[in-house]
Amino acid sequence: MSRRSRGSNKWEVRASTLARNTHNLIRNIVENLQVEPNPSKQLIALSVGDPTTFGNLNPPEQVLQAVHESVEWHISRGYAPAKGHAEARQAVAEYSAHQGNVTADDVILCSGCSHAIELAISVIADSGQNVLVPRPGFMIYKTIAEGLGIEIKYYRLLPDEQWKVDLEDLENQIDDHTAAIVVINPSNPCGSVYSKDHLLEILDIASRNHVPIIADEIYEHFVFSNYEFTALSTLSQDVPILTCSGLTKRFLVPGWRMGWIVIHDRQNIFQKEVREGLAQLANRILGPNTLIQRALPSILKYTPQSFFDEVVLFIENQAKLAYEELRRAPGLRPVMPQGAMYMMIEVKMSMFPEFKNELQFVERLVSEQSVFCLPGQCFEYPNFMRIVLTVPEDILKEACLRIATFCKEHIVSREKLKEIDTNFVLPSETQVICDNGLTRVA
Amino acid sequence: MSRRSRGSNKWEVRASTLARNTHNLIRNIVENLQVEPNPSKQLIALSVGDPTTFGNLNPPEQVLQAVHESVEWHISRGYAPAKGHAEARQAVAEYSAHQGNVTADDVILCSGCSHAIELAISVIADSGQNVLVPRPGFMIYKTIAEGLGIEIKYYRLLPDEQWKVDLEDLENQIDDHTAAIVVINPSNPCGSVYSKDHLLEILDIASRNHVPIIADEIYEHFVFSNYEFTALSTLSQDVPILTCSGLTKRFLVPGWRMGWIVIHDRQNIFQKEVREGLAQLANRILGPNTLIQRALPSILKYTPQSFFDEVVLFIENQAKLAYEELRRAPGLRPVMPQGAMYMMIEVKMSMFPEFKNELQFVERLVSEQSVFCLPGQCFEYPNFMRIVLTVPEDILKEACLRIATFCKEHIVSREKLKEIDTNFVLPSETQVICDNGLTRVA
Repeated sequence: MSRRSRGSNKWEVRASTLARNTHNLIRNIVENLQVEPNPSKQLIALSVGDPTTFGNLNPPEQVLQAVHESVEWHISRGYAPAKGHAEARQAVAEYSAHQGNVTADDVILCSGCSHAIELAISVIADSGQNVLVPRPGFMIYKTIAEGLGIEIKYYRLLPDEQWKVDLEDLENQIDDHTAAIVVINPSNPCGSVYSKDHLLEILDIASRNHVPIIADEIYEHFVFSNYEFTALSTLSQDVPILTCSGLTKRFLVPGWRMGWIVIHDRQNIFQKEVREGLAQLANRILGPNTLIQRALPSILKYTPQSFFDEVVLFIENQAKLAYEELRRAPGLRPVMPQGAMYMMIEVKMSMFPEFKNELQFVERLVSEQSVFCLPGQCFEYPNFMRIVLTVPEDILKEACLRIATFCKEHIVSREKLKEIDTNFVLPSETQVICDNGLTRVA
Repeated sequence: MSRRSRGSNKWEVRASTLARNTHNLIRNIVENLQVEPNPSKQLIALSVGDPTTFGNLNPPEQVLQAVHESVEWHISRGYAPAKGHAEARQAVAEYSAHQGNVTADDVILCSGCSHAIELAISVIADSGQNVLVPRPGFMIYKTIAEGLGIEIKYYRLLPDEQWKVDLEDLENQIDDHTAAIVVINPSNPCGSVYSKDHLLEILDIASRNHVPIIADEIYEHFVFSNYEFTALSTLSQDVPILTCSGLTKRFLVPGWRMGWIVIHDRQNIFQKEVREGLAQLANRILGPNTLIQRALPSILKYTPQSFFDEVVLFIENQAKLAYEELRRAPGLRPVMPQGAMYMMIEVKMSMFPEFKNELQFVERLVSEQSVFCLPGQCFEYPNFMRIVLTVPEDILKEACLRIATFCKEHIVSREKLKEIDTNFVLPSETQVICDNGLTRVA
């Protein structure tokens, strides 16, 4: 509470509870790292989940053209209704037909997918309730929820089963105060893509326990060969779902802040109140920028499928490259993704005894090799690190070589390892060491 | 609270307290009005505070050019830091030099001025505290605060003293739970512009009572001939001030959602906590769109002064036109504005006994004359209505003529008036009737 006594002789202004409990976990961790790169090597940042950083991936000409046209229209300068212009919401409804039957009334335009997630959480969760999110998982949920007094509880993903949800753990986490389950598919940071059967298993838990789902599908359609993306909403018989997506990743324009929520509620469980609540909450900032809103119908209609295909193929090839390079690096275990644009890599800490944890590993990797990977603690998941696959091929290759060199230089020798643990046997390349409690506990 | 019993056989999902307590007052009032225009007359909406609605006011070519260039830059597509790109914040700092000594570190970019206000309120006010706002006043404060459990308390403006603050009332409203005073200058909806002396009087109250100020200066520089705009921050010796502004009104691009907060805190009363709190709160939606952020340095630097001068002169002439027309309309009392883009008009309800309140007056004005003015209740101020001055001259003239006709047709006759109140004397044109409690109570 901001304390102040009327008539007192003292200024005392504090930040609000909301402000003091709002934290960007990734930023806080990264800012505390010692990340001075080796001056003799160009820094390669594999840390930022922004496909535009290196300039190798650009939106298609049709998208830029649509915005140029929008700049010239006077109708693209005025206020829009808080939940967005009707034409733009209609365009999103059509674009989202793969999610089921969607009308413009089901769509709320948001200032990026972060804002969509903020609205989705704040419309159905109250102070004192909790929201279940995957671990490892993207931490914007924590940033948004905790300031409002909403607890974040984690359910486990299984690294040895392509990061499937630990269903038993998920159901165990549900309690009387659970307001929603967040399902991220395809996953940031894991790059996993869930099968229909697995999604049905998740829905079954939500249905039996009567918990709505927030489906973070900002990576919708980002799936590699032989995998298929299924929108969660298409499978739900009763579970009401708020699906969050946007232009951000698929159209390579995260800075443009154009996201949306699609409301799926076949059994009318949300009723009028949640729909109306979303519309009212949108009034707080009066919606996303109208320049992009007005361009949205053209953007969604005219971007050719070949553009999407090329981007996903590029990322798939990058994933294969990184996987092949890094699985040969001693002490690492990359988990091959099935989609999205990230790869998680286990750092077998017992084989790098000079580092206390993966933070120190990542710090030293920067200071020696000028390669920056995001430590797993940024996803509440120690002993792993995440790399971004959207960097140019030659840079990714160079980064992987440097990581491998670093591992070779720091991996404990057979002799040293024996000193540390006389029972220890250095594993062969594919053998997995159970040194990571989080990865093995069922 | 969203109630749900684990294992129960029932779905029950409610909207959160935040959602249920968030309301757009103007929308709620307007949606409940019977506003079917007269089909034989073209509707003239003088209700919407959006200068772009009629297409007669457009941003200068330099602004559009800057955005066209930004569309082509790949650096305008990626994520920005949550509080904005450094170059854009630096540009705002230079643009805001009239506010005092401002550096890029003092600037937080926001998704429009509504978002700036949202951040400003939510960083210093907690549930259970209150924020003082002017009455009549712009209601976004209520929309933002009440969902968070922050009470809005009103201090009076004086319509007969050009809407100056009733200083005694302001000081009386301050209590131990007052977290901030909102000062809107130039004012929406009043169009008043405060003198230095008056601003010093307001600051003195804030200083003696140790209450920070949120200065809503989105209409900065919108002042008519012979008036001067003074940024509140330039006068403060100790009172910490969060000044909210943006491109919205002055550059005629409200839909682009580019606003900002400038932190003024000479005595370091906010300390690190409030600054850091603002930066953390910005993480909730990751800042405004980067297309405009990247264009911002050019927009702020190259827009010629002549553009601003022409817009303000146009509005001033419109204000004179409307004032002259409407002060001759029987039963109305327009208050001549000194700036911004609105005019408040008192509707002397005792002279229109067929209408219960100004809402009915406004409704019937639409159904008969197809002119829509915003009822005063949208600003918690009955018996007044607000008109927007940015419409084209011929349309404004036509609207005023229709309003005057409507008044002549509905004003009570001398005979009828005598029946109602035998002591009543129909006033001359300039005489003011004390029939509005709000306007006369000291």
